[in-house]
Amino acid sequence: MIWLHQGNTSNAIGFQITSAIIHGFDALGIAIGRADFAPNGFSPPHTHPRASEIVLVLEGCVEIGFVTSHPENRLFTKTLEVGDFFTVPQGLVHFQRNVGEANAATITAFSSQFPGLIRVADASFGSDPKIPDDLLAKAFRIDEKTGSQI
Amino acid sequence: MIWLHQGNTSNAIGFQITSAIIHGFDALGIAIGRADFAPNGFSPPHTHPRASEIVLVLEGCVEIGFVTSHPENRLFTKTLEVGDFFTVPQGLVHFQRNVGEANAATITAFSSQFPGLIRVADASFGSDPKIPDDLLAKAFRIDEKTGSQI
Amino acid sequence: MIWLHQGNTSNAIGFQITSAIIHGFDALGIAIGRADFAPNGFSPPHTHPRASEIVLVLEGCVEIGFVTSHPENRLFTKTLEVGDFFTVPQGLVHFQRNVGEANAATITAFSSQFPGLIRVADASFGSDPKIPDDLLAKAFRIDEKTGSQI
Amino acid sequence: MIWLHQGNTSNAIGFQITSAIIHGFDALGIAIGRADFAPNGFSPPHTHPRASEIVLVLEGCVEIGFVTSHPENRLFTKTLEVGDFFTVPQGLVHFQRNVGEANAATITAFSSQFPGLIRVADASFGSDPKIPDDLLAKAFRIDEKTGSQI
Amino acid sequence: MIWLHQGNTSNAIGFQITSAIIHGFDALGIAIGRADFAPNGFSPPHTHPRASEIVLVLEGCVEIGFVTSHPENRLFTKTLEVGDFFTVPQGLVHFQRNVGEANAATITAFSSQFPGLIRVADASFGSDPKIPDDLLAKAFRIDEKTGSQI
Amino acid sequence: MIWLHQGNTSNAIGFQITSAIIHGFDALGIAIGRADFAPNGFSPPHTHPRASEIVLVLEGCVEIGFVTSHPENRLFTKTLEVGDFFTVPQGLVHFQRNVGEANAATITAFSSQFPGLIRVADASFGSDPKIPDDLLAKAFRIDEKTGSQI
Repeated sequence: MIWLHQGNTSNAIGFQITSAIIHGFDALGIAIGRADFAPNGFSPPHTHPRASEIVLVLEGCVEIGFVTSHPENRLFTKTLEVGDFFTVPQGLVHFQRNVGEANAATITAFSSQFPGLIRVADASFGSDPKIPDDLLAKAFRIDEKTGSQI
Repeated sequence: MIWLHQGNTSNAIGFQITSAIIHGFDALGIAIGRADFAPNGFSPPHTHPRASEIVLVLEGCVEIGFVTSHPENRLFTKTLEVGDFFTVPQGLVHFQRNVGEANAATITAFSSQFPGLIRVADASFGSDPKIPDDLLAKAFRIDEKTGSQI
Repeated sequence: MIWLHQGNTSNAIGFQITSAIIHGFDALGIAIGRADFAPNGFSPPHTHPRASEIVLVLEGCVEIGFVTSHPENRLFTKTLEVGDFFTVPQGLVHFQRNVGEANAATITAFSSQFPGLIRVADASFGSDPKIPDDLLAKAFRIDEKTGSQI
Repeated sequence: MIWLHQGNTSNAIGFQITSAIIHGFDALGIAIGRADFAPNGFSPPHTHPRASEIVLVLEGCVEIGFVTSHPENRLFTKTLEVGDFFTVPQGLVHFQRNVGEANAATITAFSSQFPGLIRVADASFGSDPKIPDDLLAKAFRIDEKTGSQI
Repeated sequence: MIWLHQGNTSNAIGFQITSAIIHGFDALGIAIGRADFAPNGFSPPHTHPRASEIVLVLEGCVEIGFVTSHPENRLFTKTLEVGDFFTVPQGLVHFQRNVGEANAATITAFSSQFPGLIRVADASFGSDPKIPDDLLAKAFRIDEKTGSQI
Repeated sequence: MIWLHQGNTSNAIGFQITSAIIHGFDALGIAIGRADFAPNGFSPPHTHPRASEIVLVLEGCVEIGFVTSHPENRLFTKTLEVGDFFTVPQGLVHFQRNVGEANAATITAFSSQFPGLIRVADASFGSDPKIPDDLLAKAFRIDEKTGSQI
């Protein structure tokens, strides 16, 4: 089944998102996307700065988790079967991962035409130019010499 | 000068925020806070899920930076003197740090009564319970055995 | 595949909607549903008074149409294959129908937690109590004696 | 009295609306109109996709009714004398009719600069091109051969 | 004609407003009122803190004026005949006055269910307790001893 | 300390506002300003038609007051020391004045990028062209011959 283009998950994280978010197309305040997961595939921790979302499982078995804000940082997770759905409040850090044996796929609908995507690892360690190393080291409590997390 | 309570910056990051955000107090859609920075103090990379902000420098010299969303992850930074101000769009990862010799202080106003605060390091590595290690390791490209960033 | 409960389409219109719209459940400003169509099944002309929508075809081949407002009343239709999507502006009269040989299914996301549903035939001719016959007759230009449309 | 232009009601439904809704004129989020009714005149069942409304009787005696959404389709009606007013929630099917002996007139204010107007009979049976006959027949339970409502 | 109750204008300013603004009644984001003016009657300078408005003349001839914000303070006025309308942006100081020989009446619709009313003379000089005299004297450039405007 | 430019208070009211409100600069729905008060300096009664505000005392001792809407016109005042803050609802008439011996300064944040400013004395008596004298005289109950308030 090809649908909203089934994503190609042959990559390091076994994950691909295909979205119906098109700049210049007036989507009337809503957006929708499909996510495909290879076995062990996952969506890395990220936020959507301008939208809440609903996730619906199309195929397979997917764990979804989100973390509440400072200072609690509570992680809530749920394992979803086909047909289950889950909501994530606007701007919270969340992730999904395939916890089944086979491929998995989800549909996500957003409460904004342009929800935005921020992958926290990339925004922290992969920006161009880079956030100063010493600041990241202290924020993430990493040993600057070895790069190990303390 | 004690003001909105000058924050106590005797901590690992030399930074303290003191805010006029009070649950149960109707602030009419705005919030305001004061941040104090010891020399070398910094505000670790964070987002506000429900507000844009304006930062104004009260004392000292402060660098502020924010990172644009996926896939660009461009870092924009600016060094602000007393009286300079800077805006940060809702939900983007940003940080501030004292780049002067002396203490520094800023005022921040938010476009929401409850802007929320998410520190990306804490939400990623410090949640309770923890986000699975293997997922974080792959997302942040860390060697799971040594904990070093690859 | 059971998903968001596959709807039972054994009814006069060969159509069933199954929605994730739950009163008392805070869905954060979005709603999502699944629609199933038997061969020749259709969703009768209706409006959503509080939401725009995106429709995505999961299975089969579906024609979707909406009518613009007074005085133009232009009908726009599109035939969608699996993976195609279409948007309907808030409050406009629209319908979907299965134009393939097999079953069809769609996912619909709404820009409101409680989009509402008004079936124009039911609201016009099936209200309780009834809208006065003579008024309906003139509005729909029906012969009151024979009930035939003129 | 000529006012917001008294409408000419010499037509099949004895009804004319005259509105202060002008494209290109910034009305600051509000719209207002006048409706005139000949004896037996009526406003056919319609919706406003983008606004709630308040109706105020200027002259005569007017019955107003609206139908709640699926699946209840409850009809609420009220007969209004001069000076009475009534509100209609956004997007619901409603109608007005002159139930007095003389002419009647109302003022309507809308919660949007461009409330829109959808006459359900015209959007259902009078669109260009037409909604397929068999679909309308089933939706309105009309005998396709005789055109009579079943 | 009694309508929305014709107001009793036997008072110092020959003016009475009668509104359909009822606390506890859900008016769906709109409000409407009727104003009556005796000959020479006027509505003193006022603002609506939470709404823009449309004014429509029902009877007579009414001058309406509003003043733009600081530092321009430009006064725009228009004389309206029966059936003319005019809009006033949210929060601006405005007034109406009967400039005809006979009684006048207007209908006003607001873009909020609770527009609020602030009469600037009463809020400045008639508050309870009073705004300090010296402050008012300087603000309005009044001689504190004689009470005369300088 | 120069900050957001310390305002020059050598004027009749011993008051100067310096704001970070710049037309053409996208401030993301928030605005901020600094106000400076000489001894006895004050901000004359005014409204912000498009924003609520938070006021924070930076230096000195400032009394702030606002008046509720018609017909109550209740004045609420509070004397604020350094670090205290106070909120003023959108559109209400309010003032600040220096009630200490020394200079005073405040920071104000607004819930809109363009809050607007209306000084009620200037909008009433200083408009261009002027609001008719007889109307102001009656509204403010001033003797037209002597200009004294009655």
